[in-house]
Amino acid sequence: MTDGTVVFEEYGKRTQLSQGNNILDAAKKVDIEISAVCGGRGLCGKCRVVVKEGSGNLEAASQLETMSLSKEELAAGYRLACCALLNREGTTLVEVPPESRVEQQRLLVAGIETAVSRNPSVKKFLLHLSKSSLENVKSDTDILLEGLTGKAEAARLRIGYEALTRLPTVIRERDWSVTVTLRDGEEVIYVEPGDTTNRMYGLAVDVGSTKIAAYLLDLNEGKVVGTASAPNPQIPFGEDIISRVSYASKGEKNLRQLQGVVIACINKLLLDSCESAGVRVSEVYDAVLVGNTVMHHLFLGINPHYVALAPYPPAIRSSVSVRAKDIGLKMNPAAYVYVPPNVAGFVGADAVADVLATEVYKSESLSIMIDVGTNTEIVLGNDQRTISCSAASGPAFEGGHIEFGMRAEPGAIENVYVDPSNLEPGFKTVGDARPRGICGSGIVDAVAAMLKSGIINKYGLIDTKLKSRRIRTDRVPRYVLSWKEDNDVGHDIAVTQLDVQEIQLAKAAIYSGATILMRHLHIEPREIQKVFLAGAFGTYVDPQSAVIIGLYPDLPLERVQFVGNAAGSGARMALLSREVRENSDLISRRIDYVELAADPSFQREFTEALQLPHKDLTRFPTVAQLIKRKE
Amino acid sequence: MTDGTVVFEEYGKRTQLSQGNNILDAAKKVDIEISAVCGGRGLCGKCRVVVKEGSGNLEAASQLETMSLSKEELAAGYRLACCALLNREGTTLVEVPPESRVEQQRLLVAGIETAVSRNPSVKKFLLHLSKSSLENVKSDTDILLEGLTGKAEAARLRIGYEALTRLPTVIRERDWSVTVTLRDGEEVIYVEPGDTTNRMYGLAVDVGSTKIAAYLLDLNEGKVVGTASAPNPQIPFGEDIISRVSYASKGEKNLRQLQGVVIACINKLLLDSCESAGVRVSEVYDAVLVGNTVMHHLFLGINPHYVALAPYPPAIRSSVSVRAKDIGLKMNPAAYVYVPPNVAGFVGADAVADVLATEVYKSESLSIMIDVGTNTEIVLGNDQRTISCSAASGPAFEGGHIEFGMRAEPGAIENVYVDPSNLEPGFKTVGDARPRGICGSGIVDAVAAMLKSGIINKYGLIDTKLKSRRIRTDRVPRYVLSWKEDNDVGHDIAVTQLDVQEIQLAKAAIYSGATILMRHLHIEPREIQKVFLAGAFGTYVDPQSAVIIGLYPDLPLERVQFVGNAAGSGARMALLSREVRENSDLISRRIDYVELAADPSFQREFTEALQLPHKDLTRFPTVAQLIKRKE
Repeated sequence: MTDGTVVFEEYGKRTQLSQGNNILDAAKKVDIEISAVCGGRGLCGKCRVVVKEGSGNLEAASQLETMSLSKEELAAGYRLACCALLNREGTTLVEVPPESRVEQQRLLVAGIETAVSRNPSVKKFLLHLSKSSLENVKSDTDILLEGLTGKAEAARLRIGYEALTRLPTVIRERDWSVTVTLRDGEEVIYVEPGDTTNRMYGLAVDVGSTKIAAYLLDLNEGKVVGTASAPNPQIPFGEDIISRVSYASKGEKNLRQLQGVVIACINKLLLDSCESAGVRVSEVYDAVLVGNTVMHHLFLGINPHYVALAPYPPAIRSSVSVRAKDIGLKMNPAAYVYVPPNVAGFVGADAVADVLATEVYKSESLSIMIDVGTNTEIVLGNDQRTISCSAASGPAFEGGHIEFGMRAEPGAIENVYVDPSNLEPGFKTVGDARPRGICGSGIVDAVAAMLKSGIINKYGLIDTKLKSRRIRTDRVPRYVLSWKEDNDVGHDIAVTQLDVQEIQLAKAAIYSGATILMRHLHIEPREIQKVFLAGAFGTYVDPQSAVIIGLYPDLPLERVQFVGNAAGSGARMALLSREVRENSDLISRRIDYVELAADPSFQREFTEALQLPHKDLTRFPTVAQLIKRKE
Repeated sequence: MTDGTVVFEEYGKRTQLSQGNNILDAAKKVDIEISAVCGGRGLCGKCRVVVKEGSGNLEAASQLETMSLSKEELAAGYRLACCALLNREGTTLVEVPPESRVEQQRLLVAGIETAVSRNPSVKKFLLHLSKSSLENVKSDTDILLEGLTGKAEAARLRIGYEALTRLPTVIRERDWSVTVTLRDGEEVIYVEPGDTTNRMYGLAVDVGSTKIAAYLLDLNEGKVVGTASAPNPQIPFGEDIISRVSYASKGEKNLRQLQGVVIACINKLLLDSCESAGVRVSEVYDAVLVGNTVMHHLFLGINPHYVALAPYPPAIRSSVSVRAKDIGLKMNPAAYVYVPPNVAGFVGADAVADVLATEVYKSESLSIMIDVGTNTEIVLGNDQRTISCSAASGPAFEGGHIEFGMRAEPGAIENVYVDPSNLEPGFKTVGDARPRGICGSGIVDAVAAMLKSGIINKYGLIDTKLKSRRIRTDRVPRYVLSWKEDNDVGHDIAVTQLDVQEIQLAKAAIYSGATILMRHLHIEPREIQKVFLAGAFGTYVDPQSAVIIGLYPDLPLERVQFVGNAAGSGARMALLSREVRENSDLISRRIDYVELAADPSFQREFTEALQLPHKDLTRFPTVAQLIKRKE
């Protein structure tokens, strides 16, 4: 047996590999986790690696690989790790692209980390003060503010009401040693006896219409010390946003109810993340909340009725600072909440946070940010011009309106492949549990695999003439992923004809939105240097499957970057940096908004984008190869 | 019968008067009310008038008059109206000095009106806005703030949280006509549909330790439209301030309780004054609260413990602006409350309001402001230098610690005189009701009359050897004003030896405080051009009686001005004028504070001032004449 050396340079790892073994084996030997749903059978196409040097040491690309990789990719050294067999001595240098990394996905749940210089809105100062004498009586506040002179930036300091009521007792409790919490360099919001400067926390919350994610940060270290998340408790009042708007619009009481449940949920997440991090809620002095415009209005207690009526005006575009207690948040009693600006009725503070995190507005080259959700915010631009729109993509990508759809919880089928030789499927579930349903990334994978294997055609129609026991026509046509006998839910789990149509509607909304933005900037898809996929769906979806169904423009996969919960990332940035906050209002004003419904070409674009991947196949050259090649 | 003409020029009135009639008769003929407790018998000395021209038309001053008026006064034309008999034809020009005017007293309950140019902190603007279109979507807030451009002074307008939550509905309710309430030219605090600009009210409150007085103002007109007052409901927790401090210091709950009762009382007064004026509480957009430092701390919910401990530091000296709802005031939900600055632990926001109203700090000539209460604030100065102190005068002037003392309620003996010929008393009660007790002004009158008639000597001791059925010695020596048979309370109402001592202690505290302030400024009493007597007591007390007992320096009575509830006046000024607010912090910083307890000469000054009117009679030349003359 001849050995070769496989080097994973980025990981700083290398290993000896015997001839006849593949790159996936090499990765396993050095504990590098590479996605491989089909268990190394070449069927799922998820174990993509790039051979940077020594490709001659490997056997030529197999037929399975040519079915999963485009000519351009093969030319660029892309291989499927499970198929790339060593057949010669020598050193093979292998790169694992982000989409194939398992740990990448785990990290991305919290969203990308974009560097900011730490300069939080709240700062603590320890003061050692001198008490006044009968000869020179000074008020407690004067003594405090004089002690801050030189430390605080503002010329005119003031004391907040909460701090004032605490001051006389606190200032004397530790012999005139006091820790002062200063907000924006000008307002003393809180005072504590002795030295508590090392205890200063903040909360960043992304209020999604489906899920609420909270991040507890140590504001001294600039690090996340606790996280917690929960389904949005408004769901029972309306699965989709419009139903919630309609509920809230029926009266002040309903509005207060929707605000109440979401605030109660955030309070619970705050408590949970504080408990796990050993932090008291009173040590949380600042918060940033983001959400789409309707969520924004609801958690602030603003009637969202008009956001949902043309011309969809938000109540406010600018950022909002409000006292936490005014909206019922139970943190430090003097804390404020900062809410980044909105852009428009359907491009909210969460999209601005996405833009803060991806820095679309900062880069010289063009990039596009797609935050996939029930409403998908799309932002396209560079440092010259930035435009945005909102696509009504619906809940399909979150498992909604899908017959066996479910959220990405244990047992959800999240990755799917189809063996082209026998049209049998393979899949992986969340937590490797017994299958219970299909989540968003699973349905995209399934539709892409069904398209590649010819189970559906470009119109999304299931070919019921195909000879496969998996294709059932007893009711609405469907392709069975899991037999009733193989799961615990008591019925087959399948992708139905209607499910495929839901996916087509959803992806057409997004793709046509992106197309219209490109047209507004007079650019071609290939000019886009970076595609940022945000949102939980964006974190888990297979980027190749997404492009196969035509979700976004057909660009080299290395230009696609998963940014996870970028809204949460942006919220954390605003929590850590006053400059980010100051910028965000400028950014919001700079982002132009395109109302898709008012664009004359929208209907045509949408209709063309309903096909898989698109009516105009020249727009999807890579995908065209993958589909054709199988015929 | 020969007729003469009596002219009351200030009133624009004149009348014919037959010979043998007196000036009091003339006044009655033209409906001018002049104080006259004794019913025109020349005994009470309260019907002082000044004959400016034609004194030769009158009979020479009677003996009764020379007993009530000093030589200087007689030389200046002072007469008792009831004694000045017409005995010749001709025109007699008569002036009624303020202390003799009955209507003056009634007016002064609300305090002097000091002119301010109307520029309240809150202003309303009616805007007619244009809604946005699909082509140019603007947020509701942007539309609103753009509509304010040019009207509001601040470069950077912002919208408050309450206004924001109301905006989407309100802006559309009257077809985009909106009334905006702007605070300090920069913050939109409230929005209302249509035109409500003619409905804008504010509340000024003087929180005294005994009584709370509220004034509802129309901020458009700058006029009082409603008033209400009530006893301070903290009294059950401690009659004097120190007991309340001690109660509040025992724990957070107690502090909240004292805050709670006073705020509830203000809410009630607000409601009452609104109801009587036909105003809704939501139409009250601003408030000013004043009170001494302890009241200030209590209504703001600040522990006053340290205010009562040397060196008596207040928690804050500067003015405070706090949202009304933060302290529980139930007015417009977006309203703020402004609290003027304090000077020291015992010279509070009420004293600053006194100074605002009397403008002691503004005048070139020296003046002294004395706000008589349980703690009497004294401010002395001019536009060069202003100093202040607080005298622990106790509750005697409010009827406290007086055996038959009571508040100035119906039945309270408020004016007293003694007939020198038989030592029999005469008196007037509040509301001319049957006597029930003696109020502050009554006890001062009584002590002065007892001193003039020799019932007590300069040490305040009752001369029990005098032959008078009114002087009783069966228990502690006393002088009976009302026999048990003549009233409904079931016992004699008398001034006891102990009562006289209480008055001596109280007046000595005030006089010695004033003396020490004068010494600090190196001035003599005669240099003081104006004595402002403030507080309810100051409104009703007879200024001559006050000087006879030695309450303040012996100066010509025309220099004494009653300013009533000057703290309330100052509060109303701050409600009407942003300039007054901006000034008040400067004024507070300019007022030096003298801690009497730390002054080495205090003990000696106090002891000398215990005598009636003072150990050093050369300080009281006028009084010396009045007392001597009777012997």
